[in-house]
Amino acid sequence: MIDGRWESGGGTPRLVVVAGSTRTATITHEGSPISAAGADREAVYHTPSADLELLEYGDVTLAPAVPISPSGCPTPAVVTHAVRELLEFDVTPIDAGLARETGAPTVALGTEPGADIREAAAVANADELFCVGRSVGRALPDSELLIGETIPGGTTTAMAVLSALGERPAVSSSLPVNPLALKRRVVEAALAASDLDAGGAAGAPVEAVHRVGDPTLACVAGLISGASDAGTEVILAGGTQLAAAAALARHAGVDAPLTLATTSFVAEDESAGIELLASDLELELRVTDPGFRGQDHPAMAAYAAGEAKEGVGMGGALWLAEREGVPMCALGDRVERVYNRVTEAIRA
Amino acid sequence: MIDGRWESGGGTPRLVVVAGSTRTATITHEGSPISAAGADREAVYHTPSADLELLEYGDVTLAPAVPISPSGCPTPAVVTHAVRELLEFDVTPIDAGLARETGAPTVALGTEPGADIREAAAVANADELFCVGRSVGRALPDSELLIGETIPGGTTTAMAVLSALGERPAVSSSLPVNPLALKRRVVEAALAASDLDAGGAAGAPVEAVHRVGDPTLACVAGLISGASDAGTEVILAGGTQLAAAAALARHAGVDAPLTLATTSFVAEDESAGIELLASDLELELRVTDPGFRGQDHPAMAAYAAGEAKEGVGMGGALWLAEREGVPMCALGDRVERVYNRVTEAIRA
Repeated sequence: MIDGRWESGGGTPRLVVVAGSTRTATITHEGSPISAAGADREAVYHTPSADLELLEYGDVTLAPAVPISPSGCPTPAVVTHAVRELLEFDVTPIDAGLARETGAPTVALGTEPGADIREAAAVANADELFCVGRSVGRALPDSELLIGETIPGGTTTAMAVLSALGERPAVSSSLPVNPLALKRRVVEAALAASDLDAGGAAGAPVEAVHRVGDPTLACVAGLISGASDAGTEVILAGGTQLAAAAALARHAGVDAPLTLATTSFVAEDESAGIELLASDLELELRVTDPGFRGQDHPAMAAYAAGEAKEGVGMGGALWLAEREGVPMCALGDRVERVYNRVTEAIRA
Repeated sequence: MIDGRWESGGGTPRLVVVAGSTRTATITHEGSPISAAGADREAVYHTPSADLELLEYGDVTLAPAVPISPSGCPTPAVVTHAVRELLEFDVTPIDAGLARETGAPTVALGTEPGADIREAAAVANADELFCVGRSVGRALPDSELLIGETIPGGTTTAMAVLSALGERPAVSSSLPVNPLALKRRVVEAALAASDLDAGGAAGAPVEAVHRVGDPTLACVAGLISGASDAGTEVILAGGTQLAAAAALARHAGVDAPLTLATTSFVAEDESAGIELLASDLELELRVTDPGFRGQDHPAMAAYAAGEAKEGVGMGGALWLAEREGVPMCALGDRVERVYNRVTEAIRA
């Protein structure tokens, strides 16, 4: 360890984080939101932009605030950034359709947020996003790529896409209790609005995203396809949303080995059914437990209680930390430090 | 030294590279171009996009080629990237108005290239670029900021802006022999088209850029202003273009100490008059010689012969390398390695 950093053995992989927005995230039912960020429309739209800034600078710059839930659970970007402070891997943020400006540098592939999936077309430019994502995936020079996402409402669009493809429509949630009934109703309405039955878009991944997905799914599926073409090892850094993107890639003919690196919080969420989903899609599942349980800190306690669970590459970052020999207690210290720093900035 | 990298003492500064295009770069006179890239209109437009990719990935991704002159002189991005391989500083690329897509992540502040300065308005959104540049400069969390540029044709727009402000209109060139007569004619035509005399925009920096500047000048001037406001130490990483941006900042009322870190190639170019310019503008001048003279390599020989001279933060990167104790022979080896790698990719 040098200057508080662990030296990695062979180069560390690049983390690509695909960010976007979908109006699906603003859906509520009798006052209950579909997403942890959903109670506040502005928070929904600012969250992915703020996440990219946190990841790049360790704090927000142009975004109005660090995304933190009312109970004090910070965005998983805090954890991913903490790992980055320890390991210094490269991050490439991709804008697949952000609703708000970000101060972080992004590869701008998208131009507009996704629509509410209960409209006829959810992602008007799905085909373009898939193709340009594939070009980027082919062009990146790395031998190993971690791919993560940040998009509030993304588990609902993931469920809709899994349904449209005829895959197991099991997804996780950023809320402690998964609002599955509401999600199922929204997905049914989405399929109906697109004249699709469950499985109706099997083998037609771009069509599935176009009708009921979100911009990040189209882009991540393209990245997987391009990177696999180029012989790059792909580690999907996330939970059920990344699994849905992998499903799209499988339906696009990608048969390369793919790893899904997720958190123990997703793995312990029975509603997510991540093991069966990974097995269906032939994804090698890697689960990392950051050991936050029982730690006397509001952020750790909130994660341990099942808030947030995944996002912004958290599962992949934890997997990388473990692989590079970072002790989880050192990671916990660093998460605390980042959390205290960014929440102090909020209070000031 | 660990794994071929020098460990820096305190944190290294962030390098912000502001990229853009101006149609001024495509001006030719009797077949002679105004810019090293000017003989080929597509190269002019692709160069800044390719430079950002080189800096981010060590090679081009979406851009068609690594910018290399007919005599084999590579873009200064090769040198800046070589320093980055040794020191691993953060880079934040800003798109102030690129004409072609780039595979590198950028903070997108501009939307369109600048016009030929012989038109009435050269940078339609100069005011917006200055203001948003200032916001970013204020928001960046660093205590020390290097600011560089990449824009073909930039020395001509810099000369026009210096004239409009009433400052010494001395500028360098990316060509071994500075086409000063052509530049002066273009600058005269530019001032005439804008109904400006030399010094006619003194104290009105945004107006000067709007009439006869380019998008990067507006953005860099804003960055200097915002970073100085926030108490950040600013090191201008470049030659006469960065000096012109500093002149804009001075005319906008910035009186903070500013450093101009440039290469020995610019300092040895008598037509550039960088010492007098720096003295006029109260810039602390730091000149770094990478010791390329007499080395038996086509890239080094081309630099030593006065091609390229500066750009993409080269002078600032060399200054940083010297400060952090990287021996110049180690830097030369790394430049060779990067050059050989990217030119091999061209041949393949």
